[in-house]
Amino acid sequence: MPRSHASLPRLFVEADLVAGTQLTLSKDQSLYLAAVLRRTVGDAVVLFNGRDGAWLCKLTSDSKKSVALEIVEQIVPQTPPSDLWYGFAPLKSERLDYMVQKAVELGVGTIQPVMTQFTQLHRLKPERLSANAVEAAEQCEVLNVPQIAPAIDLDVLLDGWVETHGDRKLVFADEGEASSSPVSALEQLRGQRIGLIIGPEGGFSDAEREKLRALTFVVPISLGPRILRADTAAVAGLAVIQAIIGDWR
Amino acid sequence: MPRSHASLPRLFVEADLVAGTQLTLSKDQSLYLAAVLRRTVGDAVVLFNGRDGAWLCKLTSDSKKSVALEIVEQIVPQTPPSDLWYGFAPLKSERLDYMVQKAVELGVGTIQPVMTQFTQLHRLKPERLSANAVEAAEQCEVLNVPQIAPAIDLDVLLDGWVETHGDRKLVFADEGEASSSPVSALEQLRGQRIGLIIGPEGGFSDAEREKLRALTFVVPISLGPRILRADTAAVAGLAVIQAIIGDWR
Repeated sequence: MPRSHASLPRLFVEADLVAGTQLTLSKDQSLYLAAVLRRTVGDAVVLFNGRDGAWLCKLTSDSKKSVALEIVEQIVPQTPPSDLWYGFAPLKSERLDYMVQKAVELGVGTIQPVMTQFTQLHRLKPERLSANAVEAAEQCEVLNVPQIAPAIDLDVLLDGWVETHGDRKLVFADEGEASSSPVSALEQLRGQRIGLIIGPEGGFSDAEREKLRALTFVVPISLGPRILRADTAAVAGLAVIQAIIGDWR
Repeated sequence: MPRSHASLPRLFVEADLVAGTQLTLSKDQSLYLAAVLRRTVGDAVVLFNGRDGAWLCKLTSDSKKSVALEIVEQIVPQTPPSDLWYGFAPLKSERLDYMVQKAVELGVGTIQPVMTQFTQLHRLKPERLSANAVEAAEQCEVLNVPQIAPAIDLDVLLDGWVETHGDRKLVFADEGEASSSPVSALEQLRGQRIGLIIGPEGGFSDAEREKLRALTFVVPISLGPRILRADTAAVAGLAVIQAIIGDWR
């Protein structure tokens, strides 16, 4: 994208984006554009909806309650959705937001909170996760907003995995795995559908680890010789997957 | 390390650690152990100094001003220091702390703040960086505390690189590099001394990028098709380096 577009406000909308049509934004987005960012008639904005790519649009009304835009032209074609599934034991408050943001930056397709024995957070607002995913996509110019799946207990996830996910393999960073490079383990998964699960701050329990390691669809990997905090493991794990067999191509 | 040691307090000290000797902790560490953690005579603590590995120690005095310990036995041998150099444009406040913590978790040997054109933070307290590095090492059971080098301007760093760093190669995540997997670029550096530099939130300026790309010791890599925030790029970059040609073995 030309650098000039990089500094334009970028908003996610549900509506179709078609050249020459008009669109009215929600109250929240109108307030944001007109009152916070002080955009006026004629100013440019980028819109995306996860289906039609990124579009250059111009304000035709700057009312704080009801900004209207003309959809002008597509500036970036739609990127295909990611197949990468990502489950993580939710952390508290801003660290939870962080986990969702980083997952979006690293190109995950589905995000699912997974409740494990040592999980700290027990009540989740799905709207919060969705809002964070949308905001992260807006800020990092990601054209696909990951699906947020409902929170699920680890046992239920694993017991229902084959029925729900078919031939998808599940990678997990096993703290008990001897330190090694994950490169060869991941290379063997090239071309397959995969998921990554990240445990809570205290890690998986011994029983959870045993259960995971016994499942044929599970692929344990090492993330090196040091203990990683959950949020570090999340970014490190997603990065090595995307770099080695994912969409860093 | 046996799981029973994993929950013991772990503190960094400067003194040598020799079986059968006594050691008195600083005021701050004494207060922390005796008043905050409420440890008493006979309780176990783990000490490390970056040279002698990790040692099991027992309190012989629990005075809040002056905790004394008997050094009992080594429980983990010393890991070799890391040769990985890591420079980053400092971010503000807690995000700065975060950058240092993640670098320690990912096994960096030297940490150096680098001032670039778009760097947000212009005044740095070296003591803060060192304190963060020590705390991260304590929390993540890392036995080497990275050296913190003084803040340096990017131009000065690059102009003096060969004289200071010899044959060390400098990897940088180039947002302008077409999306690709960094695996082959990194494989070519296997066995060589390397560094990674992470730019500020706004990235490197065009002039800085041109200068970097023109230098023979610089190796540009891609970190995928999406824009990564500086703190994401830091963890992703360090993780792929360590996984592919570093100490994840």
